[in-house]
Amino acid sequence: MATVDFWYEFASTYSYPAAMRVEALAAELGLVVHWRPFLLGPILAAQGVTDSPFNLNPAKGRYMWRDLQRICARLDLPLRRPEPFPQNSLLAARAALAVDDARRPEFSRAVYAAEFGAGEPIAERSTIAGVLEAMGLNAGDILERAASAEIKDRLKSETACAQSLGIFGAPNLVTADGEIFWGNDRLEEGLDWAARLAR
Amino acid sequence: MATVDFWYEFASTYSYPAAMRVEALAAELGLVVHWRPFLLGPILAAQGVTDSPFNLNPAKGRYMWRDLQRICARLDLPLRRPEPFPQNSLLAARAALAVDDARRPEFSRAVYAAEFGAGEPIAERSTIAGVLEAMGLNAGDILERAASAEIKDRLKSETACAQSLGIFGAPNLVTADGEIFWGNDRLEEGLDWAARLAR
Repeated sequence: MATVDFWYEFASTYSYPAAMRVEALAAELGLVVHWRPFLLGPILAAQGVTDSPFNLNPAKGRYMWRDLQRICARLDLPLRRPEPFPQNSLLAARAALAVDDARRPEFSRAVYAAEFGAGEPIAERSTIAGVLEAMGLNAGDILERAASAEIKDRLKSETACAQSLGIFGAPNLVTADGEIFWGNDRLEEGLDWAARLAR
Repeated sequence: MATVDFWYEFASTYSYPAAMRVEALAAELGLVVHWRPFLLGPILAAQGVTDSPFNLNPAKGRYMWRDLQRICARLDLPLRRPEPFPQNSLLAARAALAVDDARRPEFSRAVYAAEFGAGEPIAERSTIAGVLEAMGLNAGDILERAASAEIKDRLKSETACAQSLGIFGAPNLVTADGEIFWGNDRLEEGLDWAARLAR
């Protein structure tokens, strides 16, 4: 089956509706989604940007929250702003890589639901442990693995890969021919592109 | 008839497809578009941003041009990058305000077609004069009016109005209840919102 890469950042607001939608839309087109969490922070920091663009530009931040409200209302998704924003997403991203590939989509959606649906602090170990336990997983084992050198290095190399692909924001779909589709707004277009490539 | 405000910046790439589409889409919904050119430069400068975000962030810039290429291909619009980018849009914006209200949409579309469809330098008087003449207007008279204190002040107050509405980019639709819909991507949503308000 043809695959498409979904690059997402747990601190990213627009990654929330995208993560909730992408798999069902991809399935309709016969595509398998490869879930690739990464960190946007180091990519922004390399450009000298040290906070969320939505905090650095208050008008853009106000707009984003209102826009996200409209999007979530349309999708019937709950929305509650976590404090502080953005949340530190390092632990969530490492835990996502520590979880088996087969459970990563479910884990990732549950983290987004906790963070932006319920306003929970995903930087806290207890939040991530709660998500893992609700999935019937052993939180202690997975959080230990998340802290291993192997997983730390893997997140670094995934982030470096995202940067080398030309990624500068989140979420993104990247198709087999290297096309980037940035944003929840480009989900359908990116999936259509991937499906056309596969034919 | 219900109206919706279309706030656009002549230097803005995504304003090009939006300007080409907005009036036909609005007409289908029985809406009248109020064309409001403004300058994004002073709004960005107030945040300490002194160049296009697409130049300051090369990965974002490369993405934007590719994304715009895909958008224009789908809409069957020609696309040719003007040099330098962004173009200085002061003369075009003043001229747009100097033209009669009834001709402003046509003038604005013609400026975008010259700039992004043909890659012409809209900062040059000859380009704007050519657009006006092709419309059967007296370019000398309109360019003289464009340089008047009245038009200069009007562009300043329009830009201040855009900023006070919360505008931070272009293009935008702003509905009667003050909702902002930013980007070519939000054209349909903003028009639907305006049409619902009017009912």
